This record gives sequence, C-alpha cells and structure tokens, in this order.
Amino acid sequence: MTAASYTPSRAIPAEDIRKWDLETDVAIVGFGIAGACAAIEARMAGAAVTIFEVAAAAGGSSAMSGGEFYIGGGSETQKAAGFDDTIDDFRAYLTMASGPGVDQPRVDRYAENGLEHLEWLAKQGVPFKGTYLPGRWPEPPTDDTLIWCGSETAWPFRDVAKPAPRGHTAQAVGRGGGQMVMDRLSGRALALGVEAHFSARALCLIVGRAGDVLGLVVRIDGEPRMVRARNGVILASGGFIANPDMLQQYAPRVLGINSYPITGGNDDGSGIRMGQSVGGALTHMEQFFATRTTFPPESLIKGIIVNEQGQRFINEDAYHGRVAQYALRQSNGRAWILLDNATFARPESFPQVTIAAVGETWAEVEAELGLPEGELVHTVNAYNRAAAEGRDPLFHKQPEWLQPLAEPPFAALSACIPDWPAVTFTLGGLVTRPSGEVLDAIGQPIPGLYAAGRTACGVPRWGDGYSSGMSLGDSSYFGREAGRSAARARAA
Amino acid sequence: MTAASYTPSRAIPAEDIRKWDLETDVAIVGFGIAGACAAIEARMAGAAVTIFEVAAAAGGSSAMSGGEFYIGGGSETQKAAGFDDTIDDFRAYLTMASGPGVDQPRVDRYAENGLEHLEWLAKQGVPFKGTYLPGRWPEPPTDDTLIWCGSETAWPFRDVAKPAPRGHTAQAVGRGGGQMVMDRLSGRALALGVEAHFSARALCLIVGRAGDVLGLVVRIDGEPRMVRARNGVILASGGFIANPDMLQQYAPRVLGINSYPITGGNDDGSGIRMGQSVGGALTHMEQFFATRTTFPPESLIKGIIVNEQGQRFINEDAYHGRVAQYALRQSNGRAWILLDNATFARPESFPQVTIAAVGETWAEVEAELGLPEGELVHTVNAYNRAAAEGRDPLFHKQPEWLQPLAEPPFAALSACIPDWPAVTFTLGGLVTRPSGEVLDAIGQPIPGLYAAGRTACGVPRWGDGYSSGMSLGDSSYFGREAGRSAARARAA
Repeated sequence: MTAASYTPSRAIPAEDIRKWDLETDVAIVGFGIAGACAAIEARMAGAAVTIFEVAAAAGGSSAMSGGEFYIGGGSETQKAAGFDDTIDDFRAYLTMASGPGVDQPRVDRYAENGLEHLEWLAKQGVPFKGTYLPGRWPEPPTDDTLIWCGSETAWPFRDVAKPAPRGHTAQAVGRGGGQMVMDRLSGRALALGVEAHFSARALCLIVGRAGDVLGLVVRIDGEPRMVRARNGVILASGGFIANPDMLQQYAPRVLGINSYPITGGNDDGSGIRMGQSVGGALTHMEQFFATRTTFPPESLIKGIIVNEQGQRFINEDAYHGRVAQYALRQSNGRAWILLDNATFARPESFPQVTIAAVGETWAEVEAELGLPEGELVHTVNAYNRAAAEGRDPLFHKQPEWLQPLAEPPFAALSACIPDWPAVTFTLGGLVTRPSGEVLDAIGQPIPGLYAAGRTACGVPRWGDGYSSGMSLGDSSYFGREAGRSAARARAA
Repeated sequence: MTAASYTPSRAIPAEDIRKWDLETDVAIVGFGIAGACAAIEARMAGAAVTIFEVAAAAGGSSAMSGGEFYIGGGSETQKAAGFDDTIDDFRAYLTMASGPGVDQPRVDRYAENGLEHLEWLAKQGVPFKGTYLPGRWPEPPTDDTLIWCGSETAWPFRDVAKPAPRGHTAQAVGRGGGQMVMDRLSGRALALGVEAHFSARALCLIVGRAGDVLGLVVRIDGEPRMVRARNGVILASGGFIANPDMLQQYAPRVLGINSYPITGGNDDGSGIRMGQSVGGALTHMEQFFATRTTFPPESLIKGIIVNEQGQRFINEDAYHGRVAQYALRQSNGRAWILLDNATFARPESFPQVTIAAVGETWAEVEAELGLPEGELVHTVNAYNRAAAEGRDPLFHKQPEWLQPLAEPPFAALSACIPDWPAVTFTLGGLVTRPSGEVLDAIGQPIPGLYAAGRTACGVPRWGDGYSSGMSLGDSSYFGREAGRSAARARAA
C-alpha cells in the first residue's frame, strides 16, 4: 500500500501488518515541547525513543511562544525578588484559572511538582537568569526571567490566592524565547540518543485485537512505514487551530473573531483524531485562548474598555487574554479602549490600532462612536469619581491602575473584532490522566496510548482563565509524565 | 454471562455471541418522541421494529414537555391567524437560533419539511385545534394550538427573519401537552405492530469485525439478551442531564447554576456513550438549555433585568431562556428584575420568588441591594427617559414592552442563581447526518448505527438561541428520518 491509500487518522489492525519497518520502545508524534520532554524522560528511563515530526525541524508552535512557564510555589527567583509564594496559593490560582471544568488531580500534581520541574528544565539546559522584572509585560524585553503574566493581582483571582509573579521565562533578550527553549530541549533529547525523523507524517495508529495500540504508520520519504512501538505511542502533535473543519465542529466561535492563530500550520488536529480513532474521549473542545495585547505601555491598563452600550464589562487590569475574551463576547463584537491625554498610547504589539474617535469632551467621543446618548459619559464620569478615591466599585480594578481619565483630548481605540486580530490557539483535546494515559468514553485507559501538550486537554482549559506560560508549563511537565509512563510500560 | 458482567456502554464483538435471543430489523433504544417517531416510520416502511425502554412506560422526558413543536413556513394555523410566514424566514430564524455552530444542511432539511411534518404528526393522532392564542405564554393555558414561543419579535432575531408565531402545540387544556403527545405517538407505534420491551436497559452495542453495528445487549428481567438488529440500531435515549460525571466533563457550567433538570432520571448519557464506544464523534457538548420563566404575567417583560454592576445586559423581551442564559453568566451569578407598582407581579411559574428589595425610590432599592452608588439609578432613569419615547437605544427592546418604571413603590425580584432554579437539559450529542447516520471523528458513517433526539446534536445546539418546541420538533422530525434510513438499510 502507498501512503495515499491510508485514511488519515483511521486506525488499522495489526494483523494486516506484514512486516515492521521500524521498531522502538516509545514512539512520539510531534517534536514540540511536549514531545521533547516526553522523549528526554523516556530516554533517561532507559527506553529506546523515536520521534516523528511532520515539519523539517523540531519546535512546533512551542518555538513560537515567549518561552514562559507558569510556575510558582516559592522558587529561588521568586524568593530573591521578595515574594513568598506558596504551593497552596499556586494551586488555588490554577484551580480558579482552570475554570468550572477544572481537573483537580492534574492541577494538584502540577502545583506540587512545579519547583522540581523548574529545576529539571534548567538541568536540561534551559537558562534562567533568576532575576525579576517589575511591571506588566507579555514577555520580558530584557533577559530577566521572572515577570507577572496572569491575573494574579486582579479581581477575583487576588481574592483566592495571594498574588505573586509566576512567569518564569527562559533567559533571552527580547521576544521569541520559545525558539531557544526548543533548541535546548530538542538538542538535549537528541544528545541522549533519541532518534528523530523529520518531514515524517504520522498517518494512523496500529491496534491489536483488544484495541491496544501497538504502533503507527508514518509517511517517510513518501512511503508508509510500519512502526512498532513496544511500550506505546505518545501523541504530542499540538491542537487543532489550523483545522477549519474541526474548528467549525467544536469551537465555531474561533471562526468569528478574526483569529490570528499561533501555529506553523501543523496544529491540524491529526493527533486528536488519531486518539479518537481508538476510542479516546475529548473534552472542553469549545475552549480556546484568545488575546490582544494592550501593553506595553502600561498606561493603556489605566484606560477603560466599554461595549456598544457604553458600559464597562471587565476590570481592565485582568490578564490581557481575559479582557480580550470578554470584549470578543460583547454584542456585535464591538468594544473600545478609552484613554485621555495622560494615558494615550498605541499598543507596542499593535501600533496600527484604529483610533475610532477623538474629542475634547467625552460627549464628543460618545457621539463620534455613535453610542447611546449619555451612556459613555455616565460610565466615564462614574469611573473618574471613584478612581479619584482609589475605588472601582463595579469591577474592582486595583488602585495602582485607577486614574481619572480627565485630561483632554480624549480618544477611543477600537477593540472591535474586525479592527484588531486576536492571537489564538485551542485548549480542548483528549481526556488523559495526569500520567498521560488516554482515556476512553467510560474513563478506562487505552493500552499503549498517551497524549500530552495541546493534543490533550490540560491544566489550561478555560479561555477566561488562561495566563501566559500555562500551556508551555503544562505541555512540558505532563510531557515528562507521559514519557515516564510509557517507559515504565516496557517493564509491564 | 450475567447482565452485571457487562461493562456499560462498552461494545462487544459479535464473534463472542453464541446465540441471538431476539432478532429484529430495527432496534430502537428509548421510547421518547424520537424513538416513537423512528419506530412509526420504520414500521410503515415494512421493517420489523423493536423498542427497548428502560422505564416502565413510554414517554421519556418528551412526556414532561409542553407538547410544543417549533415549526413555521406558513401552516394553515399561521395563515388562519393572519401570519404569512415563509420557509425562508423560518430557515433564517433557525439558522440564527442554532448559533455559530449551525448545521446548515440539517436546518435546511427541517425548514423545508416542517409543514409536511406537522401534517404527519396530525395523521399519527396528535391533535391540533388550529387556533392562535395571542400574547406571550410558555405554554398555552387554553386548548389553542399556536403561540409565540421564541425570540421572533426580539432583537436581533427580528432583523434576520420576519416574526411569526411558530409554537404549534398539541391540543390540550393547560400544561403537560407532552404526555398526551407521547400517549398518541407511542400508541400509534404499538398499533402498527412495533414490539416494545419496558424496564429494558440497553447495556452495550454488538459490533462486527469491520466495526459495523450488528445489534445490542439488553437487560430484560435481569438477564442479558443478545439482540440482532438486521438493519441497524437507533439510539434515542435522551441526553446526559442526569449524569453528573458527564456534566462535569463536558458541561461543567450546568453544575454551577442551581439546575432543575427536565428528566425522569434516564437522561444518563448511556446512548451517547454507546455511540462513542464504536467511534461516534460528539459535538457542542458544552451547550445546554436553561430557563427561568418570568411570564405570565406579561407585565414582568416590561420590567428590566440588571446585574451586580447595576447594568442591563439583554433586551428583556427576548425568549425567557435567552434572558436566563445571559443572567446566569453575569458576575457572581447575580441579577435582579426591577419592577414598579404598575408592573409588579410574581411569576406564576415561580410564586416563591425572592423579593430582594423594595423602596419608594430607586435609590432605596439600589442601596438595599448593595449595588454601586448611582448605577442602578442611572440605568433606570436612562431606560425610563427612552422608554417614554418608545425607544431602547441599548438593547432594542420592542416598543410594546417599553413602559417607564416610574410608579412607586419599586421592587427587585431576585434572579440570583441560588434564589431561582433554572430548568435545564443538554443540547450536545452524537454527530449525525440529517439521515440519522452516526458519524465518526473523520466524518464517515458507522454502518448500522443511527441516533436522534438529544442523544444526537440537532438543530438546537446553542443555549442562547433555544426556543420552546425546538427539541420536540427536532427529535420528532429527525427521529422519522432515522427510522426511514434504518428501514431502507434492510434492502441494501
């Protein structure tokens, strides 16, 4: 049979396999951060490991990230910066951030092992300078390695967990720390003797009579190769933000928000579908990350965001992704950031922002935006009165960001859907145990199958609660767990 | 093997079956409206049909409904009442009401065949008096059979489809038309020679080597019976509102809204899981119907609903389920219905409603509710000013419902989550073609397997767009399609 004759993601029975072209203990699909960490752990546990990556090089969408890991609990860097974060506060924050569908055992495991995980990443060659950068940054512009990167100081999160910065970022000047992180981790995996095949597309899984996963079919040099995985297969090939059909079926809202996906194009859901083909269950498929970064400069956080009713709807000091999710849900997808002369600036990440209205009075801005008469004016006046007293009785924005918008001229930046693309990726995926074992519809593990990274549904599973570094942290940590689980399976 | 030795919802291979205890052409799981209509069509097409119902009698949650069918396009009853509804307007309304994940081919099929379906229901013995009852009713208190039952006249629906009443309701005085509808349809099925087993629980499907469904195992009188279904199995056993584990995994928000499920207890998701066990894909599992009926009396629609910021957030003349969904999403699940002396009343469906505050001025009500100073007062004053001019510039509530709330004393009814349970059922389920064929993860049909009713994801798949009668209409119409498809499969 030729590669073209396989139905993508449809499992085939092992009894149809005449000979195995390749044999290994642990076969991993995808060489992003989940696959790399799984490979390192499985190899260090003594397993023969082979990775199949569809792209020409390692990295995946992980390499497009900022290289941040959302980890707390009292790291050396946190302590040196004067923060006494605890595992309980870290766990409490993650629990709220995971939303109503929180997987508590997974959150507990991640919170309890976060500090060890940071040390492990450093041992693998990911550099952490150990210095803290104050202020609010999506990524450090310096080579500092600890920043605030979520809603820790914002209502309602600050009420359930003592705030602390938890954005542990790989040491790299400026953006793009993710590429360096992936260079180090993929290099480490290869140095340990992990075998990697690039431009290699996983076509489908190979299953035994009992439904256990025995291997997979991979297209290499245009030919289908039968791969025997003695311990199991780990699916770590990303999410489905690059698959319009899956988005329409599972997360149709993404198609309506002017989405700018974080992907090299290979987050096509094929890993998720391979898992489904052997009975793997899915969860939280409707959830996705979406953001429009307003800062730097921080002065934009001192502005307020209103909808087409002229109402505020969120505390503007919440994580930029949370603010974006709320804005995207307002009627007709319309929202504006209101600034005065003292706070006005264009977002560094989006200098081409549309200035929808300017005026010497807020009434002029309201009229120029065509909003209901008196609503925006009331909203700003009420906000200003309370802000002057250091209060935000509506949404509890913190005093540090409260400043009356009283110095003309005034302006409204458009946060309407068509005017400002939202950076996105998916959060739903295969149901797994913290061990990485893929579960079926009735919660039973599928022998020989593991998943990690965005192919699985992890700690981050609620767009409204996402914080920078949650996906990289979850993917790297639970990638390790999956690698260890698969390596152990060999003994069994 | 005993019944207890089967893993619920885990398919077993046909080669393990020693002998078939029962043989039929079409086996149907569930004797609610989807199962009843599937049975009638399959039987009329000449197939031998056997229904397995876990309860002691037919009906399911369909019997707990109001007996409304959301159908339009220009019925005799609509015409007699002076409404010139068209199939295009009916389709346009359903398309918006299905939300961002609309299944257009399914909506088109339903819209184009709605009038024929009404006639078919009448032929089966469901009585329609053919008279229209003006006003806004969740169900007709009279024996009239056409009412307004959605958001047809409300923004934004009125802008995409010319409004018309489409709630075709079985003739019955007062509530509970659903029981009569099920008595007629189940009686019709039995009269046609459909064999029915009650107190019969479907345990799991039986599959062939190619993954095709050949039958199922049913527990009857405590014993597992091997049932051969020559044409196929139709899963019509309802949704999963009675399964807390599935709700936690797929629709966790339901667990946080003080849910009062519409179910006899058998909407346990077992049909969905049987479909999953043979590779059936799921969609829109996070979506659910939720409502708190405010009218009668209609005067409550003239009130306004505000959140804990003292803001309005929806046009109060939208369908009660849409208003409820918005209210349930407000911060801390807090909302109140504001009424003045001229509009005050207790909802007939919930007379024990909590009166959270009363006052001679709106400022007193605002203070008693502990809302941010001046916000509720601004909201009411702005609403009253515009209402006096017949306008609602914020949410476009229609003039018919606009009346200044100006006659003291004033009151606030609590629509906070703990104070007012929301009636619920689930909308997510198996992915099917309009024909009822269940599809796998890559969109291929699973031979021998069909689904209808809330075991499948149908036309209603968006809580914000639900209208009364959509589930009964979808379940009865697509139940028929599934029955015909399965009957045809016999010839093949």
